[in-house]
Amino acid sequence: MQSDTFRCSLRPSHTLLRMPWIQREITLRPRPRGVHLVTAEIVDALPDLRDLSIGLAHIFIRHTSASLTLNENASPDVRCDFETWMNVAVPEDFAWTHTLEGPDDMPAHIKASIMGTSLILPISGGRFALGTWQGVYLCEHRDRGGPRSLVVTLTGE
Amino acid sequence: MQSDTFRCSLRPSHTLLRMPWIQREITLRPRPRGVHLVTAEIVDALPDLRDLSIGLAHIFIRHTSASLTLNENASPDVRCDFETWMNVAVPEDFAWTHTLEGPDDMPAHIKASIMGTSLILPISGGRFALGTWQGVYLCEHRDRGGPRSLVVTLTGE
Amino acid sequence: MQSDTFRCSLRPSHTLLRMPWIQREITLRPRPRGVHLVTAEIVDALPDLRDLSIGLAHIFIRHTSASLTLNENASPDVRCDFETWMNVAVPEDFAWTHTLEGPDDMPAHIKASIMGTSLILPISGGRFALGTWQGVYLCEHRDRGGPRSLVVTLTGE
Repeated sequence: MQSDTFRCSLRPSHTLLRMPWIQREITLRPRPRGVHLVTAEIVDALPDLRDLSIGLAHIFIRHTSASLTLNENASPDVRCDFETWMNVAVPEDFAWTHTLEGPDDMPAHIKASIMGTSLILPISGGRFALGTWQGVYLCEHRDRGGPRSLVVTLTGE
Repeated sequence: MQSDTFRCSLRPSHTLLRMPWIQREITLRPRPRGVHLVTAEIVDALPDLRDLSIGLAHIFIRHTSASLTLNENASPDVRCDFETWMNVAVPEDFAWTHTLEGPDDMPAHIKASIMGTSLILPISGGRFALGTWQGVYLCEHRDRGGPRSLVVTLTGE
Repeated sequence: MQSDTFRCSLRPSHTLLRMPWIQREITLRPRPRGVHLVTAEIVDALPDLRDLSIGLAHIFIRHTSASLTLNENASPDVRCDFETWMNVAVPEDFAWTHTLEGPDDMPAHIKASIMGTSLILPISGGRFALGTWQGVYLCEHRDRGGPRSLVVTLTGE
């Protein structure tokens, strides 16, 4: 019976180990309006990542005037061009009715919905399974956005 | 052996309890073209939410001319400005080739892809872990869209 | 003891069966710039799908100048109109600073973030629970994009 007992007590624990749910809040320091590469900052805040051989990471921003997207992680010019394009596509000078919080506010809301408020990244072998050129962008759409709060939910085995 | 038996029969059940998968269909009543706040309607249809201490909710719209996004939950002006901006960014008067289903159809498809067809919300302590100002928007892009069907998948512990 | 042993050894396996995590890489063959329907190609590469009664599929593209979205699966005109609209909304002739990799490169990055780099599809009864008219679009934003690599993560019960 000893081996059976052993098997009984180990397997369920093993199962629990296989399916963790981990949730962490990360506060990103205030950044100027524009597009910022924050991959390393997020990875550094998630030591749990390395325990997952397969899984998913849900990265969620709890704001309506900043957003998250994945894009080119090498050239700062790309991030600059994102900001330029967004300001043309969603101009401050427009027929907005919601203007109480300043000219940058309503465009910020639209931009946030275009870019998106969450990312799901695949986890593989304890790391985000990103492509070579992919990095996480924080898009700060306000002139003075303040710190930005993320909720990261990890699950996998 | 009794204690071992007890351990064997309890732990796996406990594991099963920890990892539910719940899927529900929600039908949203027809709404006029525009942007509508539907957070409360979705939460009310998900009594299971309160059983999850950590988890994720995937909210999926099964249509190609309506969409879901997260944005400001307070001022109706913001939703009105979303509609105004989308109508300028994706105009009905454009070089569309797919015009069979009316002038509002092809813009509706593009708008749906810009805004997105699903949301993932983090669950924390039995509730959506939304920011203070975040609410779920149903964007109805058709003039006469009809009821809209959502599939909501919940998982967590 | 025999029946107890049986229960001990079966239940954890049952639990493991209920909660699989499967991750597959899929390489999509090179396609011309434009919007392509790839639902069948993805489903064919996922035989595991039919083992899941409820679950989620995360489909992730590991590139920054191609993207994934869900839209109308019937008329090729719709896909053609997507390409036309994107070329107007994010033109090659613009004040780009990142021009080193050709005039189609920087617009490709922006378009990829507008459309999105991942999809989550609900799984129900061994199939994607898509609406009647929904299909998966691969948006190839480069003139010569090459093969595109997807990481698909499935989980459920």
